[in-house]
Parts: sequence; structure tokens; C-alpha cells
Amino acid sequence: MVYIGIDLGGTNIAAGVVTESGQILHRTEAPTRHERPWRAVVEDMAKTGLRALSEAGYGLDDLKAVGMGVPGICVDGIVPFCTNLGWHDVPLVSAFREYVDRPVFVDNDAVVAGLAESVSGVSSNTSSSVFLTLGTGLGGGIIIGGKPYSGAHGVGGELGHLTVAADGEMCTCGKRGCLERYASATALIRMGNEALARCKDGMLFDTTGGDPAAMTAKIVIDSAKAGDPAAFGVFNEYVKYLALGINTIISFIDPEMIVLGGGVSRAGTFLLDAVRAELPKYIFFKTLPYASIELATLGNEAGIIGAAMLGRE
Amino acid sequence: MVYIGIDLGGTNIAAGVVTESGQILHRTEAPTRHERPWRAVVEDMAKTGLRALSEAGYGLDDLKAVGMGVPGICVDGIVPFCTNLGWHDVPLVSAFREYVDRPVFVDNDAVVAGLAESVSGVSSNTSSSVFLTLGTGLGGGIIIGGKPYSGAHGVGGELGHLTVAADGEMCTCGKRGCLERYASATALIRMGNEALARCKDGMLFDTTGGDPAAMTAKIVIDSAKAGDPAAFGVFNEYVKYLALGINTIISFIDPEMIVLGGGVSRAGTFLLDAVRAELPKYIFFKTLPYASIELATLGNEAGIIGAAMLGRE
Repeated sequence: MVYIGIDLGGTNIAAGVVTESGQILHRTEAPTRHERPWRAVVEDMAKTGLRALSEAGYGLDDLKAVGMGVPGICVDGIVPFCTNLGWHDVPLVSAFREYVDRPVFVDNDAVVAGLAESVSGVSSNTSSSVFLTLGTGLGGGIIIGGKPYSGAHGVGGELGHLTVAADGEMCTCGKRGCLERYASATALIRMGNEALARCKDGMLFDTTGGDPAAMTAKIVIDSAKAGDPAAFGVFNEYVKYLALGINTIISFIDPEMIVLGGGVSRAGTFLLDAVRAELPKYIFFKTLPYASIELATLGNEAGIIGAAMLGRE
Repeated sequence: MVYIGIDLGGTNIAAGVVTESGQILHRTEAPTRHERPWRAVVEDMAKTGLRALSEAGYGLDDLKAVGMGVPGICVDGIVPFCTNLGWHDVPLVSAFREYVDRPVFVDNDAVVAGLAESVSGVSSNTSSSVFLTLGTGLGGGIIIGGKPYSGAHGVGGELGHLTVAADGEMCTCGKRGCLERYASATALIRMGNEALARCKDGMLFDTTGGDPAAMTAKIVIDSAKAGDPAAFGVFNEYVKYLALGINTIISFIDPEMIVLGGGVSRAGTFLLDAVRAELPKYIFFKTLPYASIELATLGNEAGIIGAAMLGRE
């Protein structure tokens, strides 16, 4: 028996056929074109999933379940909000089941990526882990007892919106000082541009031509890696906030492992070593063991694998 | 069958005989005298517990288990740190079992109080809850699936040390901006004294005679209740930070209920109504259900009841 995993993004629908142990046998894609009515997107999700199944040489009789990861909140098979797609109260599971008569599951994309890492990635030997997507936003995926944990009302795991700096930067959620404002790729760009405004030479200026719109997280990281003082200062400030957020996760639910994924995590060991060095400053019980901090290993495949694995329970 | 619950405090050892459903049948006390070697304290804990059992008319054959709540961290029956008692790496469970040959359990006092409320208090119909002790410090007790949750290494639930104000007030833990610095009784006293320094009349000045050492959380709350403008401003600031902390709890693990206990919670509905009114400003998914906020109902009995209930599993 196999699973279909569908990773719904703002640009593409990626679907794959996945084994019980979390290996992708075959994958395919279609454009999301999210400006369409949601029913048309769901139809294409079903078609893309079934195409992957057929191309992999399997039929419906081989299919145990379908799982989907979406960039929004999911409660009981419904998507109350998916801002990037403009969805509101979309009954995703029931709509999808009009096309595929199998058990269908859906969860948030960060949760799904965390589940993937815990099945066949870096956290595969842990029972509890927290996955952080350090991207445009900051998403969280909590795994407890090997299963995704979304809380009593399905609104948990929103780790980007933990307050770390009361009265700090205004967040898109309307609240000030959210972790997302300090530890996402967007935060690195903001801090990079603040440095750019202070300093009209150096690598940040040279690479962007002094244009804030040209600033990227990669420019800040690459400049910091190359030893540019301003960029290194920005990077250290970013690492401080990320470590504060990680310490809050440890002080709260004390997982076995915290996994760093998303765009900023492509900084690799440069980021990992810096976070590991900064974190002990904030740890409450300094002589007791605490979560190991690791980089995600599955990359873009995590979305398909984790979605598929939602159906494994 | 009955349980012994022992609540170890800095001043007293309180012990009680507790039923399967969390009712105290009989209770007794002895002084802690924590300046003694820890073995002497443990001996008195055992004697006090056995005395309660005997006074209640029960014998060892009626005793199913013993549970203890201590004001420190507990990992695998050992107390690595208990600052108030000056304990370090005390093998509490094994030492206690020299006196009572029954299953013995130990956990942090806030965890124990949260368990008590979830067995026979305000959160008794919930599967998941978070208990906050708003006292000298700020302690947290996480209950998931009806059981205390302390994480993978036993260092979770330290909700006083979530960072809510990076670069803010220095905490006793050595880190800046911990929730404990903004939402404990100690925080209310600090904010009260900051208002006292700005304003040489009004109820805060009259009640304390202008002496910061005379300031208490109760003075601030009673003055705010009586309508003193400076005290009301302090109270609102306190409520803002408590609500930010509660929102972080909701965004993170989304429990069914959050229970307010400890000294500050004696402000009663004055506090509860203010927190409930402030919280929606910070909630991420404003139209979806989230945790109800309630006052603890068991008071000082929570320590004995919850300790006893550690043995129920």
C-alpha cells in the first residue's frame, strides 16, 4: 500500500507517491493558479495526485490514504484561513473526497514538514520535536509522541506569533514583537536594510547597489560569511532572537530536538554553529540536558512526505 | 485505597490523605526547617505523611502510592535544583522510599497544582490545561491528555522564563525579559514602586507611607479596585503582560483551559475580567475558539491533592 502526499503552495501543487516508511517513489507538479475559485484548485490537487499514482504504476486499490499540507490553518478537515491563497472556510477534505474515495487528511505545511523530518529525516529517532520554518514568515510544527500536535482547538503551533519583544516591531497579525518579526527571512532583510541605512559602504551596499528592494536574506548571510562587519552584526542580532525563541520553546515544551528548516536554514552550519553557541546564554537549567538543535535534511521533499504520512495513523 | 499527598514548601510540610477522586480526607503539617540537611527534611516528610495516614484511620495496606510536590525541578525522581530549599541533586524518591515501601512520585509544585485542578478543580472537565502560579515567581503546570507534561528532559513547563521582552528587565535566571519579571506578584510590586517614585500622593503613597519596602501586590490590586488612577495604570500594565504571556501559551500549545492560581489570582474576578478583556487584542485567529481563562478553585489544597494524584496513573 502507498500514500499520496500533496504539497499545496502559492505557486505549485506538488504531489508524490510515498511508501509506508516515508520514501517518495514518484512526484509530479501542476501550477496552483490560486486566483481561481478554490474548487478548481482542489480539482487540480486531486488530478495531480492521481496522475502521480498512475505514473508510479499504482491504482486506487494500492492507495491507503491521501494527505495534504497547506500554507494555512486546518481544523477538522476545514481550512478557516489560508491567507496566501485567499481561502476562507474551505471544506478541503470533503471537497477532495469527491474525487478520491479514500481517507483524506490535511494539516499546516510547517506541521507536515516537521512530521516528515520525524518520519524519515533528521528527527526520525525522536518522539518529540519542534520544526521551525525560517522563511518569509516563521512557521512551527510540533510533534509529540510521534504525532502532529495542534492543540485543543487546532490553533496551536503558531510559533511565529509568540511575543518575544513586547512593544517591538509591528507584525502582520496586528500585534507587536512577534518572533516572526525577528527570526524569519523577512526579519533578516529588515535588519539588513537597517544596517544599509546606517552604512554606505561594505558588502551590503555593494551587493544591493544601495537599493533596499534588492536586499535578500541570502545577501546578508553571504556577506556575513565573507566577514563583512555590518552584515556580521546583523547576522548575530538575528541569531540572538532565534536563540531566544528556541529557548522559549525549550522552557515551554522541552522537545527532544528542534529542527531548523526554510530558506534561512540554507545558511547551513554557519547558522547552526552560531545558534548552538548563542543558546546556552539563555538556557534556564544550564547543567541539565536539553534539546539538540539540527538542520532539516529533507528540503522541498518534506512537504510531500509529511503530507503523505498524515494518513499513516 | 487512598493516597498520601505531600506539599513541600519553604515554611511547612503539608501532608494529606486523598481519595481516588481527589478529595482530602485528612491533613496535617510540620515545619520544613529547610536549613537542616535534606535527609532530615525527607525523614519529616515521611513521618508527616504516615501520621496523616494513621490519624485518618488508615494503614499501609490501604496506601496505594505517595506523591510529593516540591518548589523546584524534578527529573526521574531526583531534584537537581530546589533553590528555595538549597537542594542540589537530591535523590528524593529513593530516600523517601527508605521510610515508605510504596510507589513514590514527585513533581514540581506548579505542575502538581495544575494536576489537582484538572482532577477535582476548575479544569476537571478538560483534557489539556495550563496552570499559572502568579506568586513570588511565575510557575507553570502543563497537563496534556490528563497527565502532567514535563517534556523530554524534564525541563519544560518553565513558563516564567519565556522571553516576552527581549532586552527588558533582568531576571534572577540571568536572562532579560522573562515573563516572570512582568506577570508575577514580584512584577506587580516593582511596577507599583515605579509608580510610587513618579507620584507622591494617591493610595499607593498613603498605604505604603511612601516606603517601597512596604509595597505588596495586594496594595496595588486593592488600590486599583478602589479606583486610584496610578494603581489602576499599574494593574493595566500588569494585565497587558499577563495577557501577552497567555496569548503565547495559546499560540504555542492551544490548551482547552488556562487556570490562574497563586497570590495574584486572589484578586478574583477583578483580575479575570481584565485579562479576558485584554486577551482578544493579541489572539491570532480572532474568530476561532481558544482556551477559556479561569481562576483556580482549590487554593492551598491543590498542593496536597495534586501530589497525591501523581500516584494515580
